[in-house]
Amino acid sequence: MPRPVDVGDLVSRAREGQARAVARLISLVEDASPHLREVAAALAPHTGRAQVIGLTGSPGVGKSTTTSALVGELRKRGKRVGVLAVDPSSPFSGGALLGDRVRMQDHALDPEVFIRSMATRGHLGGLSWATPQALRVLDAAGCDVVLIETVGVGQSEIDVVSLADTTVVLLAPGMGDGIQAAKAGILEVGDVFVVNKADRDGADRTVRELKHMISLGRKEIQGAMWRPPVVKTVAARAEGIDLVAEAIDAHHGWMADRGVLEQRRRKRAESEIEAIALEVLRSRFGDVRGGTALEQLAKRVVAAEIDPFVAADELLASLDRV
Amino acid sequence: MPRPVDVGDLVSRAREGQARAVARLISLVEDASPHLREVAAALAPHTGRAQVIGLTGSPGVGKSTTTSALVGELRKRGKRVGVLAVDPSSPFSGGALLGDRVRMQDHALDPEVFIRSMATRGHLGGLSWATPQALRVLDAAGCDVVLIETVGVGQSEIDVVSLADTTVVLLAPGMGDGIQAAKAGILEVGDVFVVNKADRDGADRTVRELKHMISLGRKEIQGAMWRPPVVKTVAARAEGIDLVAEAIDAHHGWMADRGVLEQRRRKRAESEIEAIALEVLRSRFGDVRGGTALEQLAKRVVAAEIDPFVAADELLASLDRV
Repeated sequence: MPRPVDVGDLVSRAREGQARAVARLISLVEDASPHLREVAAALAPHTGRAQVIGLTGSPGVGKSTTTSALVGELRKRGKRVGVLAVDPSSPFSGGALLGDRVRMQDHALDPEVFIRSMATRGHLGGLSWATPQALRVLDAAGCDVVLIETVGVGQSEIDVVSLADTTVVLLAPGMGDGIQAAKAGILEVGDVFVVNKADRDGADRTVRELKHMISLGRKEIQGAMWRPPVVKTVAARAEGIDLVAEAIDAHHGWMADRGVLEQRRRKRAESEIEAIALEVLRSRFGDVRGGTALEQLAKRVVAAEIDPFVAADELLASLDRV
Repeated sequence: MPRPVDVGDLVSRAREGQARAVARLISLVEDASPHLREVAAALAPHTGRAQVIGLTGSPGVGKSTTTSALVGELRKRGKRVGVLAVDPSSPFSGGALLGDRVRMQDHALDPEVFIRSMATRGHLGGLSWATPQALRVLDAAGCDVVLIETVGVGQSEIDVVSLADTTVVLLAPGMGDGIQAAKAGILEVGDVFVVNKADRDGADRTVRELKHMISLGRKEIQGAMWRPPVVKTVAARAEGIDLVAEAIDAHHGWMADRGVLEQRRRKRAESEIEAIALEVLRSRFGDVRGGTALEQLAKRVVAAEIDPFVAADELLASLDRV
């Protein structure tokens, strides 16, 4: 028998900072439990306060170490901090690998730090479904700052950007040339750039190339121009992390003054609403005619009998009939 | 005035191998032109023949060089080859960066090779929308093999896996330790592994670690077990590329014998149909009440007045009324 859930009590205890209540609420929203909507409704009035920071970069640049050091810096400043570590490998493995989560152990016993590994799902909803809900839990639980750390480039990075107020992009010297960096799309998504492992050879060259490429590629937002700073760090020794925190705050203030923050958050809510609505519709596809409609249509497409657009029309038509 | 489009003529010319007709058809499907459905219908009867190979790996492992070398190998074997180079940076930049496409110049004048850079879109449809349609064009144009090359990990990699018959994962020595590799989810997605730049220090160690991790993590498919081979290459000198081609063919034969190929292709068609159906629905969201419904709902979510699930319900309800 499933444990009975008192959502109101859980939310109260989460707001008092009880880690178990926070963890339980995240599980309830992450698993799309029957209590999902009740939890969402109970959280809503307490949301909107947390500053959301995305951290992204290729494997090997030291994201987890930097996240851990940044948590330390924010704790020094008296902030309550949430961390969502998003792992795109999970759709295939069914669970997050904990290898470098170990580095976050520094904060495991701090009652003002909440750390959660998120498994993205192997479907279209992906990160855009579960992570915003976990973010709402941490926000309602009184986190001043939520850090969302993700691996690599591509859709998960795009999703993090769409969730964050400020996106921090990490690089390291010698991880490939400038074109490779640009190819990964990092120039357009970064509000703050960090060159980590700056004690290595080539750090100054990486900073120089990055600044040059940034100067070429920036666009105006709301008629104003944010010039992303490039900060050098050695996260393993917490060097330069105070400067990263300051750069993040400078960006936050810049956005707030110009209405960009409000705009980003509205866009975030739009994506969230849309993802939920699409997920609701998508769940209906599987139900159509006992789940066989999609499979039958796919067989006909593979057999070159119909094209996928005709198949999609038939799928939607059968949806309307249920 | 837009150019008039004779879809039937374009398809005929594409099937004769005329590169301009192929390029034009891809543009028509990629831009979701008014002719999209007409093109899809005209292509459908000619699809289902191409062998689809996905190539993925982190930036810097030599994907473009390997793709180019593999095209050369397939040409030696008399195959007509299509290449789709998918660039996840494009949602932000509005166009693909051409930096390392230059390495494909070897094949630019070969009339039996079609190369196309794909811009993924900055929305949920993403790669799962445009790339399958471009794949159908190349398939109908008589390509024996279509190579889909993508950058990095995350959603774009997942999408490539869902499109390909065989997924080739590239690594290079010294790109990070084993846990980093596993974190990126590559072990579960690879049918064939390639350790490129095998003339570098540490290549044998990378191969050894990879084989060990593969041996730990494999799952049965349809009651059978495919053991992904690990092939060493120096793509810049075309060394080992013949072995890559043989490993791909071995995997293809293995799947065909066991019905796995048919199953993968049906799953691919299901994803494609579903993505199209969701995109159709999604386009309706923007139309609801002159495009303001979603924006107004988002504002109320940001103001902590309603939760996003209630907002999604209202969005869907307003959709039903139009």
